[in-house]
Amino acid sequence: MQKVNVVKNVLGANDLVAEKNRETFKQANILSVNLISSPGSGKTTLLVKTMAALQPEQKSIAIVGDLKTTRDADRLSETAWESIQINTGMSCHLYANQIAQSIDNVALAQAEFLFIENVGNMVCPGEFDLGENLKVILLSLPEGDDKVAKYPTIFRAADIVLLTKTDLKGVLDFDIERVRKEIAKLNEKVTLLEISSTTGEGMEDWVAWLRAQRGRCVGTKAKFFTEEE
Amino acid sequence: MQKVNVVKNVLGANDLVAEKNRETFKQANILSVNLISSPGSGKTTLLVKTMAALQPEQKSIAIVGDLKTTRDADRLSETAWESIQINTGMSCHLYANQIAQSIDNVALAQAEFLFIENVGNMVCPGEFDLGENLKVILLSLPEGDDKVAKYPTIFRAADIVLLTKTDLKGVLDFDIERVRKEIAKLNEKVTLLEISSTTGEGMEDWVAWLRAQRGRCVGTKAKFFTEEE
Repeated sequence: MQKVNVVKNVLGANDLVAEKNRETFKQANILSVNLISSPGSGKTTLLVKTMAALQPEQKSIAIVGDLKTTRDADRLSETAWESIQINTGMSCHLYANQIAQSIDNVALAQAEFLFIENVGNMVCPGEFDLGENLKVILLSLPEGDDKVAKYPTIFRAADIVLLTKTDLKGVLDFDIERVRKEIAKLNEKVTLLEISSTTGEGMEDWVAWLRAQRGRCVGTKAKFFTEEE
Repeated sequence: MQKVNVVKNVLGANDLVAEKNRETFKQANILSVNLISSPGSGKTTLLVKTMAALQPEQKSIAIVGDLKTTRDADRLSETAWESIQINTGMSCHLYANQIAQSIDNVALAQAEFLFIENVGNMVCPGEFDLGENLKVILLSLPEGDDKVAKYPTIFRAADIVLLTKTDLKGVLDFDIERVRKEIAKLNEKVTLLEISSTTGEGMEDWVAWLRAQRGRCVGTKAKFFTEEE
């Protein structure tokens, strides 16, 4: 028993709850994805379109964190099977226990994807495990091509990096090769996709990547409740 | 003495150091400005051009916070009289004691403006007083017109809000009136300027505002060391 206590202390309260969340996701056969980026890099718009593209074969649940308002959950509800807003007040990131509370009454097993849109922030969300299977980092072209080395934590932790708003390529001075090289230095195996919610560039690859990850991470399950009846 | 201890406890360690910084700035007759925004909203580029526009009449010292690298200080050194990089490691904002340490060997009294470029972040920097005279909040058009109500803390604390990258007006769908209204709800007296470091739009008004604030906040002093000789 003493041994268990030591492990608990090392993990800390957030990580303990995160582990519990991960087990809950596994039991429900749902792939959970934590989206992290600056405010305004296009997380919500991308998610609305991603969840539409996954349908009708696969359903998504969306949880979104913001200091205030239900703006993002309102938008996500357009294509999410269920959408949940967490208001963090003064906090710059989501905690695992907020996710645990959010999913308490949600029928996770009836959906295939759980998208967690973190508070818009390139620092804090990278340090708090929510129990997710995958971390997706967005970097939009207007943010500039100098950001990777300045915010290494989230890029190091990324399972995929999405370079968003690529429709602005002709308008902005952004060196994609510089970003590729700097990401490769921090995280050599990470996938990098160029994507635009406006033109649809990269959407097919992104959706295919998500489906492949789901196949890799979780087991199969009956796609719809009606099929089981 | 007991009374002093109670005040110390209420203020907290950061605020105590911030008060000391404020007194140091006052003694040196320097106007200190804390710039806060998301990563990539254009703080560094704006500062480089602002410090150039203030010359030759007025000199500027620049302090910049990033998790890693000296990229921003390198750029700021183009037009700053002195530039200092603080690497915060894992922290999403600057602390007052980092500013205190940074200015320890700097001849503040020989410059007119101290610009502090905080870590790119719309949440944490708003909660930590550095002892600055003014808080400047930047919001760039690519970040979207829905951000004010979602990140109210920094807009409530702002002395001025700069809507940056207005050169992208024709390319992006951004409702400036929506932003004006939402800022006015949180902070009715705040000045709002539209600005572009690319085209120069708004730069004159911004520099004039800075000079007026300096006149209002601090006394006059000999402009250059050579004049005093």
